[in-house]
Amino acid sequence: MILSALLTSVAINLGLCLLFFTLYSILRKQPGNVTVYAPRLVAEGKVKEGGQFNLERLLPTAGWVRKAWEPSEEEFLSNAGLDAFVFMRIFIFSLKVFTFGGIIGMCVLLPINYLGTQLKDDSDFQHKSLDSFSISNVNNGSNRLWIHFSAAYVFTGVVCYLLYYEYAYISSKRIACFYSSKPQPHQYTLLVRGVPIPPGSTCSETVERFFQEYHPSTYLSHSVIRRSSRLQNLTADADKMYKKLTRLKSKSDAPQSQRRDGLFGLFGRKVDLLDHYERRLGDLEDNVRMEQSSVAAKEVPAAFVSFKTRFGAAIALHIQEGVNPTEWVTEQAPEPRDVYWPFFTVSFIRRWISKLVVFVACATLTVLFLIPVAIVQGLTHLDQLETWFPFLTDLLRLSVVSQVVTGYLPSLILQLFLSFVPPIMILLSSMQGYISLSQIQKSACTKVLLFTIWNIFFANVLSGSALYRVNVFLEPKEIPRVLAEAVPAQASFFIAYVVTTGWTTIASELFQLTTLLYNFISRTFSSNSDDDFEPPSIPYHSEIPRIRLFGLLGVTYFILAPLILPFLLVYFCLGYIIFRNQFLKVYVPKYETGGQFWPTVHNSTIFSLILMHVIAIGIFGLKTLPLASALTIPLPILTLLFNEYCQNRFFPMFKDYPAECLIKKDRADQNDHNMSEFYDTMANAYNDPALMPIRYSDRPNSNRDPLLHNSQV
Amino acid sequence: MILSALLTSVAINLGLCLLFFTLYSILRKQPGNVTVYAPRLVAEGKVKEGGQFNLERLLPTAGWVRKAWEPSEEEFLSNAGLDAFVFMRIFIFSLKVFTFGGIIGMCVLLPINYLGTQLKDDSDFQHKSLDSFSISNVNNGSNRLWIHFSAAYVFTGVVCYLLYYEYAYISSKRIACFYSSKPQPHQYTLLVRGVPIPPGSTCSETVERFFQEYHPSTYLSHSVIRRSSRLQNLTADADKMYKKLTRLKSKSDAPQSQRRDGLFGLFGRKVDLLDHYERRLGDLEDNVRMEQSSVAAKEVPAAFVSFKTRFGAAIALHIQEGVNPTEWVTEQAPEPRDVYWPFFTVSFIRRWISKLVVFVACATLTVLFLIPVAIVQGLTHLDQLETWFPFLTDLLRLSVVSQVVTGYLPSLILQLFLSFVPPIMILLSSMQGYISLSQIQKSACTKVLLFTIWNIFFANVLSGSALYRVNVFLEPKEIPRVLAEAVPAQASFFIAYVVTTGWTTIASELFQLTTLLYNFISRTFSSNSDDDFEPPSIPYHSEIPRIRLFGLLGVTYFILAPLILPFLLVYFCLGYIIFRNQFLKVYVPKYETGGQFWPTVHNSTIFSLILMHVIAIGIFGLKTLPLASALTIPLPILTLLFNEYCQNRFFPMFKDYPAECLIKKDRADQNDHNMSEFYDTMANAYNDPALMPIRYSDRPNSNRDPLLHNSQV
Repeated sequence: MILSALLTSVAINLGLCLLFFTLYSILRKQPGNVTVYAPRLVAEGKVKEGGQFNLERLLPTAGWVRKAWEPSEEEFLSNAGLDAFVFMRIFIFSLKVFTFGGIIGMCVLLPINYLGTQLKDDSDFQHKSLDSFSISNVNNGSNRLWIHFSAAYVFTGVVCYLLYYEYAYISSKRIACFYSSKPQPHQYTLLVRGVPIPPGSTCSETVERFFQEYHPSTYLSHSVIRRSSRLQNLTADADKMYKKLTRLKSKSDAPQSQRRDGLFGLFGRKVDLLDHYERRLGDLEDNVRMEQSSVAAKEVPAAFVSFKTRFGAAIALHIQEGVNPTEWVTEQAPEPRDVYWPFFTVSFIRRWISKLVVFVACATLTVLFLIPVAIVQGLTHLDQLETWFPFLTDLLRLSVVSQVVTGYLPSLILQLFLSFVPPIMILLSSMQGYISLSQIQKSACTKVLLFTIWNIFFANVLSGSALYRVNVFLEPKEIPRVLAEAVPAQASFFIAYVVTTGWTTIASELFQLTTLLYNFISRTFSSNSDDDFEPPSIPYHSEIPRIRLFGLLGVTYFILAPLILPFLLVYFCLGYIIFRNQFLKVYVPKYETGGQFWPTVHNSTIFSLILMHVIAIGIFGLKTLPLASALTIPLPILTLLFNEYCQNRFFPMFKDYPAECLIKKDRADQNDHNMSEFYDTMANAYNDPALMPIRYSDRPNSNRDPLLHNSQV
Repeated sequence: MILSALLTSVAINLGLCLLFFTLYSILRKQPGNVTVYAPRLVAEGKVKEGGQFNLERLLPTAGWVRKAWEPSEEEFLSNAGLDAFVFMRIFIFSLKVFTFGGIIGMCVLLPINYLGTQLKDDSDFQHKSLDSFSISNVNNGSNRLWIHFSAAYVFTGVVCYLLYYEYAYISSKRIACFYSSKPQPHQYTLLVRGVPIPPGSTCSETVERFFQEYHPSTYLSHSVIRRSSRLQNLTADADKMYKKLTRLKSKSDAPQSQRRDGLFGLFGRKVDLLDHYERRLGDLEDNVRMEQSSVAAKEVPAAFVSFKTRFGAAIALHIQEGVNPTEWVTEQAPEPRDVYWPFFTVSFIRRWISKLVVFVACATLTVLFLIPVAIVQGLTHLDQLETWFPFLTDLLRLSVVSQVVTGYLPSLILQLFLSFVPPIMILLSSMQGYISLSQIQKSACTKVLLFTIWNIFFANVLSGSALYRVNVFLEPKEIPRVLAEAVPAQASFFIAYVVTTGWTTIASELFQLTTLLYNFISRTFSSNSDDDFEPPSIPYHSEIPRIRLFGLLGVTYFILAPLILPFLLVYFCLGYIIFRNQFLKVYVPKYETGGQFWPTVHNSTIFSLILMHVIAIGIFGLKTLPLASALTIPLPILTLLFNEYCQNRFFPMFKDYPAECLIKKDRADQNDHNMSEFYDTMANAYNDPALMPIRYSDRPNSNRDPLLHNSQV
């Protein structure tokens, strides 16, 4: 890639971003789009959906930037929650890292690279290859490489310092959030699994007896878990039917309220639709009730056990309870709304096996993903398309069309396949036996991260056959050399990747094209889809890996091709302001993990650093400066030791709260008069929603909203 | 090696063993040897040292075998302690495994191997090579290999079953021992490190305040640790001087009680020796007292904290105490006699660095050990010796002498070097920051085990250059092939190794040659060395690795050369009876780990199985039976899964006691009237012995025995 081509690409993509921003600033003011661009505010009742038309609504303005910028960190934290706060810290951390890296890179490394003569590129400045700005252009054996060497040490030091600072800052915020939190059921509750039920006794009795025996002063109550997957399906059906019915009722005088009761509603005798649905809902309800009474007997040997104090719960959590460590296994309970109920129906052995299966499936998907993609991409060759769709022949021979097809179709197919990955990973994680949605998301986040690093970074770098790639990793000695040859060669590709994919994904995050289209279609074709309106929550498991990939690119290419850094800085600046806007206006957290995504971010940064060091070792070797190569070896070791220290210093705080905090918080609560009330609500907090009594149809209490019983849980 | 040679070797070594046994049964009856062969009984006061001479004392008898055999497992356990019991279970476990393996091997595999014709060995039975009895003799591609394949599966299954059974049995014994134990200080005590001392406060105050704040109902007392390494040296000097003095006093009318006070006691004026020593002891005592008073100010930010109940201690142990996880770090305290005091003088960072240094040193020693040995062995070539010691030339030219020198000297040098390894590993482990002698021994045990497996097994198997060896482990794919080629080739070496080294080491364990010689010399040259008499404790860190090496050989060669198994069975039978005898009569446990050596034994057995599987995969490949090779791959995976399960099922019980046990035991103690007395003794249990008041010299209380203050601790 030459410099002028890069500049063209930058110009095009800047234009695209500006277009997105302009469209956003106009569209967001249209009352119909309020559920797309401010669903959070709608859910909180801060914005009315209607509104008068005026001219101002058609003018693009940048007021949203100011509004997103204004709130202080504290305000943002209390407004959006700790998880969103941690997410924003990724941007702040990256901005700090790449501002420092950018200054060193652009002021020191770039001129040195440019002054080299290794590549013998004699074209004028405009037509210079981007490689002239990379380390490849520095002469072999040149002493100037020692500047790159020092830069690697200094950069690593700064990144480690910033990592330490962030970890400390976020863990202090986590503790502060804990201190300022109200009493919540999950702080007092454990999930106990592997209850050994003696013959002739029930699970409930066993749990009660055990905890009253060994934790008499702190035990409060428990709720046994029941095998309810069939019931869950029935309840979901009833819910759906109820929604249909209410919608039908709201437009009860519409002409289509009658239909035939035969196949597809086309044949058979005409029935009153309202009447028909009501009868089916009644049937469903009867089924649910029958199933509910039978489920009561299907106890799973597990229970949520609540304690009177947080410290009491922590004691039972941390000390092995029974003599057999596979019995009475305790685990901190998730928030009630965060519990993943379907999981509990699975037995221990099935969970163990599915964990193995998921591991294998995930590894296979990650390693072999590109093979089917390549095959499908191969089918989009022009001649293939012509044989399949002969009528397109003339069209495809137009040079513009053929360029678009060959240029964009393969990348479109890749994007399509990639978009399936996060949902697949969520599915795999949910089979792994996690008891909460947040744990599933966290695990999926790690999976997607590994997937992204392998399939975007390594697949592009090691663009040989799949087998060749695997072979490299079986010969550890060869890795630095192979990477040092391959990674710098892809520098211009990744610079272009940041400018195109990076900038546009972040702009389209603001623009929310799919939601906008969906909203437009549903508004046009059905007048009351708002019944189902629910503000979205941010998919951390697909966003964090994407952002971390750009972080990885920045760190890895810092000494190789510092030209990438300014473009990354633009990306992170845009991301910072746009995601702040989205958190304040769009996303509503479904559950709170207490900042548990940060360790993943930390670890991936450490990985990037190590990767950078390995490549540096290889590249100094290739550049015939073996001393620098050898002297770089302590760097990854020091980084790993630093990581080890951080794991000891901070990670325990992200797992559990220390005794000091728990006891202080418990003592503060002792003076609270509402605690007995809170204890009462806690007793029912962990009941399976499927087991709650339901009443939809026109019998006593028929108007009770199903949303109400969901929100109770 | 041919069959007749093996039989000769067996005969010679059996003869040697018999000789050892005969000598033992005579020597053990000599009254002078009672401190060599029954020090435990002497220490317990069950045997008097003197005795009348009679003829029966000169006749070899086997009564000791009966006496060692007689006690039941329960009696042995209560007599010798849980650690010794676990040690004996290694023999019982190995006997079970190799009895089963031996039956299968000798009745099924050996005939099949012998009937093969691959090696085309046409010599008569007596001159058959041992390889004719190994898998190498089975024809390539023969379907008979499927029997070996099945044997591998069946054997692995049986070993895993036995492993499971042993783990369950030993952990139940561990819990039973806990239930039957008397209250002991270490059950109630934690070591707390990283006490954050605020300015203007002392460590003692900080600890007191913290635990009274957060564990008010269970906190009992604490003793702060002081920097006392200088003091420890001084006290040791004073101890030595005191012993010299008492010895001198006991023979006060001897002529040498005067000596000159100059160089080597040869020049200068004559002084009264008694007076001289007493004055020096007095000076030392003054120094100790001065140092003791100055040490009181040198607080280390660590303390032993005692609690009123075991459960109270467990709570503080398992829950992270402070917000910063590197502060208030808790650890279960060792038994008071087990504390490794010198360790406490080292700061956190120095401990961390020394841990790294030890890891590197240990890895280097293990991997490169054979290089210096080989060099030294190279120096023992006859011509080398002749150049160095020309006067030996004639002697060395005698064929008997030259055979002995070339045959035995290299192996003697290897043995000499090997005997240094356990002490070196103990030294390395003691630098790692463990707080107890038992932990040091356990860590050294693992180190010596790895060392033994690498330097005895792998070094003999992969007898190429050191570099070549390391290379194999960098190419994981090649490992099965290389091992499958190399391991069967060494079968006869290892059979001979079991017969020679195995049998003789176990017989010399009974005979205790070095102790016997030392005892003989000290009795001859100094009449009252009994002052220093202290019964020995068994060096687990050198014995367990040795026994496990023979276990590894048995498992690895089970399908390759089953001929090794009968000889191993003899080894384990001898070992069982001899070590039982030694535990009952010789060794006195210095501290009790509660059976914590078993997990090491379990893990090393799993490693042997995996190694066996890897070799099987390679050998089926070499024997052109790729299907069997592929079908063996699930076996190591299943074994690892089994191990994973065992780790979950049993390992937690070897780390800490569960809440159920602790609470039951605490409740049982509540009814005990001696508890308040016990609490009083506990308050002083963890005082540094160097800080105890000492009074040796002829001042008030001068007759207090220093042994008394040691036994108090």
